[in-house]
Amino acid sequence: MKAYKIPEATVMRLSIYSRYLHQLIDERIMTVSSDEIAKGVGVSSAQVRKDLAYFGEFGTRGVGYKVEELYGHLMKILGLNQTWNVIIIGAGKLGSALALYQGFTDRGFIVTAVLDIDKDRIGKKLNKVTVEPLEVLKDRVKEHNINIGVVTVPAAAAQDVTDRLVDAGIKAILNFSPRVLKAPQDVIVRNVDLAVNIEVLSFNLAFNG
Amino acid sequence: MKAYKIPEATVMRLSIYSRYLHQLIDERIMTVSSDEIAKGVGVSSAQVRKDLAYFGEFGTRGVGYKVEELYGHLMKILGLNQTWNVIIIGAGKLGSALALYQGFTDRGFIVTAVLDIDKDRIGKKLNKVTVEPLEVLKDRVKEHNINIGVVTVPAAAAQDVTDRLVDAGIKAILNFSPRVLKAPQDVIVRNVDLAVNIEVLSFNLAFNG
Repeated sequence: MKAYKIPEATVMRLSIYSRYLHQLIDERIMTVSSDEIAKGVGVSSAQVRKDLAYFGEFGTRGVGYKVEELYGHLMKILGLNQTWNVIIIGAGKLGSALALYQGFTDRGFIVTAVLDIDKDRIGKKLNKVTVEPLEVLKDRVKEHNINIGVVTVPAAAAQDVTDRLVDAGIKAILNFSPRVLKAPQDVIVRNVDLAVNIEVLSFNLAFNG
Repeated sequence: MKAYKIPEATVMRLSIYSRYLHQLIDERIMTVSSDEIAKGVGVSSAQVRKDLAYFGEFGTRGVGYKVEELYGHLMKILGLNQTWNVIIIGAGKLGSALALYQGFTDRGFIVTAVLDIDKDRIGKKLNKVTVEPLEVLKDRVKEHNINIGVVTVPAAAAQDVTDRLVDAGIKAILNFSPRVLKAPQDVIVRNVDLAVNIEVLSFNLAFNG
């Protein structure tokens, strides 16, 4: 997997800052300080300044940041000044939920294909997309210029699906299966384990509570 | 929200280490070094040692860690030497997927109630749980001794649902809505934004690619 030059935690915070700035734009607020951003998203203002410093100087001392300008910068840094076509492999409950997830569309991630091997799922409509058999993977990736693959198949099938995505030329994979996936150096795999998130809660209830 | 004594990133890694150790137990491997754990989960061995050091000395220099002992320690630290009862508010696609999510059950999170306000969803069966109206929230929390609330309602309803969970005595909330939630100091709210995860990919495709 590719090494990040910028810490992943920073990238995730930039994503959160950009949402907050979007909210400010909606409220017609023109300038914002790092303190206000910090308060708005729940991190320290030193953290905000450090995160933004990775990408050069945006703000003016004593004045703060111009909201629209900073928002534009962040969206560009996050690669969100364009849309990305997404293929989802696995049309179960989670795959279907993600295919219909407004939070993806809102940020420019367009689900253009959903594939499965289950005959009962193939043909199912998810908004404008119809579930198709796994065999069309390579064709769809080429045809729709798909950049990102989302894996929502059971653990046992996850590596095979990943190999097929890599073979089709996909360079970025979001993995919801509990399996650790092997992929070439130039392919970024990001694991989303929903249970890890709930375990941060049980830790706090058990350990601090 | 409550301040963590242990960095959240550490807690998330402990969760990942514990899965890896579980795999080793399945393979009947008795001892493991920090180097091996590091390689198995894809972090540095210095990071593994630092993370484990928060909770005292587990390993023996030159021998490594006893797999079962370390696994037991980690599960206890994560609060997973017991089960936790979970209520899900919002029985849409995402809420339903989470209600049926094996990754929760496997780690001891038992979904004991799923509530919604939509008449078309109330009465729907999700495994052993039937979707019930929002009005029974307080009763179910008390009756089932529920510790954790999961919010999968639209943004506009999220704060109201959170207020109801807090009012019912819930101290830990997993929020899948894009809304930043207000909650009292003694309630832990963890936001899971699925789009943030995919944006780490677009960042890498756009910025490093």
